[in-house]
Amino acid sequence: MLKPWTEAQPRLIEVAAGRAPADMVIRGGQWVNVHTREILPDTDIAIADGRFAWIGRDPGARIGPETEVIAADGRFMIPGLIDAHMHVESGMVTPARFAEAVIPHGTTTIFHDPHEIANVMGLDGVRLMRDESLLQPISVFTQMPSCAPSAPGLETTGQPISAAEVAQAMDWEGIIGLGEMMNFPAVAAGDDQMLAEMRATRAAGKTVGGHYASPDLGDAFAAYVAGGAADDHEMVTEAQGIARVRQGMGAMMRLGSAWYDVKAQITAITEKGLDPRSYMLCTDDSHSGTLVNDGHMNRVVRHAIDCGCDPVVALQMASLNTATHFGLERELGSITPGRRADLILTRDLRTLPIELVVARGRVVARDGVCLVDCPLIDWPDSARGSVHLGCDLTADDFAPEAPAGANRATVRVIGVVENQAPTRALTAELPVVDGRIEPEGAVCHIALVERHKGTGGVVNGFVQGFGYTGRMAMASTVAHDSHHMIVVGTCRASMAAAAAHLGAIGGGVTFFRDGDEVATVPLPIAGLMSDRPATDVAAGATALTQAMLDSGCTLNNAYMQHSLLALVVIPELRISDKGIVDVRSFEIVPLIVDPQG
Amino acid sequence: MLKPWTEAQPRLIEVAAGRAPADMVIRGGQWVNVHTREILPDTDIAIADGRFAWIGRDPGARIGPETEVIAADGRFMIPGLIDAHMHVESGMVTPARFAEAVIPHGTTTIFHDPHEIANVMGLDGVRLMRDESLLQPISVFTQMPSCAPSAPGLETTGQPISAAEVAQAMDWEGIIGLGEMMNFPAVAAGDDQMLAEMRATRAAGKTVGGHYASPDLGDAFAAYVAGGAADDHEMVTEAQGIARVRQGMGAMMRLGSAWYDVKAQITAITEKGLDPRSYMLCTDDSHSGTLVNDGHMNRVVRHAIDCGCDPVVALQMASLNTATHFGLERELGSITPGRRADLILTRDLRTLPIELVVARGRVVARDGVCLVDCPLIDWPDSARGSVHLGCDLTADDFAPEAPAGANRATVRVIGVVENQAPTRALTAELPVVDGRIEPEGAVCHIALVERHKGTGGVVNGFVQGFGYTGRMAMASTVAHDSHHMIVVGTCRASMAAAAAHLGAIGGGVTFFRDGDEVATVPLPIAGLMSDRPATDVAAGATALTQAMLDSGCTLNNAYMQHSLLALVVIPELRISDKGIVDVRSFEIVPLIVDPQG
Repeated sequence: MLKPWTEAQPRLIEVAAGRAPADMVIRGGQWVNVHTREILPDTDIAIADGRFAWIGRDPGARIGPETEVIAADGRFMIPGLIDAHMHVESGMVTPARFAEAVIPHGTTTIFHDPHEIANVMGLDGVRLMRDESLLQPISVFTQMPSCAPSAPGLETTGQPISAAEVAQAMDWEGIIGLGEMMNFPAVAAGDDQMLAEMRATRAAGKTVGGHYASPDLGDAFAAYVAGGAADDHEMVTEAQGIARVRQGMGAMMRLGSAWYDVKAQITAITEKGLDPRSYMLCTDDSHSGTLVNDGHMNRVVRHAIDCGCDPVVALQMASLNTATHFGLERELGSITPGRRADLILTRDLRTLPIELVVARGRVVARDGVCLVDCPLIDWPDSARGSVHLGCDLTADDFAPEAPAGANRATVRVIGVVENQAPTRALTAELPVVDGRIEPEGAVCHIALVERHKGTGGVVNGFVQGFGYTGRMAMASTVAHDSHHMIVVGTCRASMAAAAAHLGAIGGGVTFFRDGDEVATVPLPIAGLMSDRPATDVAAGATALTQAMLDSGCTLNNAYMQHSLLALVVIPELRISDKGIVDVRSFEIVPLIVDPQG
Repeated sequence: MLKPWTEAQPRLIEVAAGRAPADMVIRGGQWVNVHTREILPDTDIAIADGRFAWIGRDPGARIGPETEVIAADGRFMIPGLIDAHMHVESGMVTPARFAEAVIPHGTTTIFHDPHEIANVMGLDGVRLMRDESLLQPISVFTQMPSCAPSAPGLETTGQPISAAEVAQAMDWEGIIGLGEMMNFPAVAAGDDQMLAEMRATRAAGKTVGGHYASPDLGDAFAAYVAGGAADDHEMVTEAQGIARVRQGMGAMMRLGSAWYDVKAQITAITEKGLDPRSYMLCTDDSHSGTLVNDGHMNRVVRHAIDCGCDPVVALQMASLNTATHFGLERELGSITPGRRADLILTRDLRTLPIELVVARGRVVARDGVCLVDCPLIDWPDSARGSVHLGCDLTADDFAPEAPAGANRATVRVIGVVENQAPTRALTAELPVVDGRIEPEGAVCHIALVERHKGTGGVVNGFVQGFGYTGRMAMASTVAHDSHHMIVVGTCRASMAAAAAHLGAIGGGVTFFRDGDEVATVPLPIAGLMSDRPATDVAAGATALTQAMLDSGCTLNNAYMQHSLLALVVIPELRISDKGIVDVRSFEIVPLIVDPQG
């Protein structure tokens, strides 16, 4: 493990003075200096105890018989990349597997908010994520989730998070601040719990993460800012980004698997010429396929450069700016003495090939291959057995009852919209057979299966927009934000079988056709994450996508659409364990609008 | 007193939301935004509980019947100015009187290192300075002095500072970090105490102040950087400043009463185009005359602008950059919600007239007049009675004895050099009368009178370069860094009288001619500071300078030269309570080089 700076200091001085050999010396690189914004040729670096000890020319006695010497050969030496805000669970792997996946991409520091597991396991889940984070060969800082449940009163989360728990977590090693405060209406309204969580974070000298997902820059925004959020990553326009920075917040620009918010905002720097110090880059959500095939923060930095940003400024936004934002600028974020020795060798500052990655003074990846062990914790039974169905589900559990004597019924239908998170609140008149409302045409079943407390509760509804044909069902225990189980299907027997399968394997995503399993991504950790490598998960996800396609679903990001159908904070119509939710009015509404006898 | 942010948060939200009236609203100014580096016209500001609550347009219900409304009338609204590093004692007044003097100049935050009083009173002195600092209507942060004595073994300080005391002080409210670590050779050599002080500071999450006063940018500099100093203010060239910033340190550029280091360094920004975020402005040492007649940080910012710096960048270097450096960017340093409501109204961003100053939401100065009370502590007897002479001094105590039988003696003479801190190590052959060595020509007496422990010790020597004529003596208990008493004179009776006078009044600076007092600046607090207004002290200093001039002294900064004659860290020859010190070899040397029989 990395020694704290206080323990390393005497040796750092000895090495810097040239009186003692370093552990590693990198020779002859171009030093990309994110403090001055310069590129300095012919520079050597000495590393000791996992930290930069010396940056200069001619290492002399700093190279001893045991010193590992690396030839930079004129390549650029850039700081290891920092992701300013993200959720490990979005990669469907645990922190160790996430680290293993992103290390070859040059990511050496992550700030992650385990919001999803918090909704399943509460503070215990946060602690487990923190525990595994601390074991990694890169720096993985954990933000304490602020909002579980996300929508109090409209859903039942596995374990609610209290302000007292936030205060308690602020004393834990590895907790860097509060995770995105997404209940922005409550902050603006002066809600006691939300305010107390932010105060506890500030009282601990830590950083309050923000999330203000509204285009309103008037009084509601002003009130949210005054509440104390230090950053935001929900902006989608240049003006929204500038508004944050003018008000003293950090602006985190996202490029995730499904977020494309850099291009619209970076013009504040590239065209308007604003001071870039308050801007940072982040991914927010990266699916395993993105991590395996496209990259991580290297992808974001490249994109920023492609958008016209000066490469060194783009690198500042993925290193020093973020370190400073979290109060860590003397601990990491630049290639300067005392900081964690995190750096990348790359031949080209625009295409940014990640040729060699050093983290904490060790070579951790070379040419895209992770060379270090990323230890997993021994995930306990409470995490591995998080899917509690309470009873054996049958096809009948997924058959919504019609009012007595009705022949047809007009029901609410969740309308999925291609490439958008918001849904539409539709209605459809459906036939009744044997007292049950039957889907028809583009409409199919959706069910929310309670899975935290084993109540056996199933809420039934209808959805359209997936385009499914044949007799199929898809089930997922990733079901933002409370993460019960969402089952969508045209066939109730397949739905029952799919749900039972996830119950048996401890969660995941599965696709059934004609009552049989077609593809499954097992996510046995809290029903959210795999402890297998990201490549395995990505392969499973590909098979799953193919199964959806084979059953007629042509949506982009069909799986993401599925997993967001219970997200009762985004309009218009959603499903929760409490019923069908109209997110325009924030109320539970009946499934049946109009029964017809 | 200012409420902590955590207590103010609920009301800040209410005001920001427009649901509650503010304490103060400033209407229609040009918002100088140090985050984006923009100037935004037609902006209104609402302030509550001493903090900015809202910055926008149209305050509406934020103006209530009790709200104080100030018309900005199109003037610029700039952040209150921050002095990144300075010594209150250099103004010869206590923190309260210093605050009173600088508030009309727009200074609203100070980081000060009470190094001088620490040399007299040790940790108790630091605590007293901290106590008075915390009472002020502006933000006065105290750095824990790191080096007392400055030159262990070559001088005896009033109270040495230990590493354990540094660690203890790091827990005190109002202690922001470690004061300038000036023993740079010891740090580079790995000295245990110096390293432990820096570790204790970092372990407390606070900032280690640096001081590397050497042009050597080789291994010694590298070792010093690795030791952990976070900033430096001793640079005098552009290259020295850039070297600090490249290595991850903050560069504090000085314009003090006798420091002129901005012009040479600011070209790194104005010509080389480096990222300015790591650059800060400071005064280090401001005499009361400078404070009364010329200004404080407003003088420094104006000077930076005169040197070609963009005004908003210059203001960043006196606000946000410094706040960020000390980890206070969410507490102060910009006009944004949640921060301490410190701002200035000015009509011109280049000449920077300080028309109205608001600190913590109160109007504290208008048109150069301080409008608030700056409370003094009740300084205890230990501070007011710090001059312990131990015995009645007579003219004979100031008469160096010649070896028995000598007629003449060749002695070491401290040579004062105009406009330079270093002295020259000279010798002179002087006559012996009645067994005592007599000064002659340009040479006069100098004596170091022990004043901390009442030992009655007097070390005698000779000095030249002041140009004194007639029968005079000048004595001062400001005698860097150990602050014993330095007496310079042509007349031993006047020297004894001057020393006795300072003993009687508890310290200060006094000039005697023909045995009589001509001018005195009483400094009864630790023999270093007055509790009278800075205007009084400045008037006294003017009278003193006139007295020196009337006795033939034509040096610039003659008083400063006097007070630095015991500064045993700057070459070549100095005097201390241990004897004559050769600062080239760091050893005590005999006064008499060659007696002649």
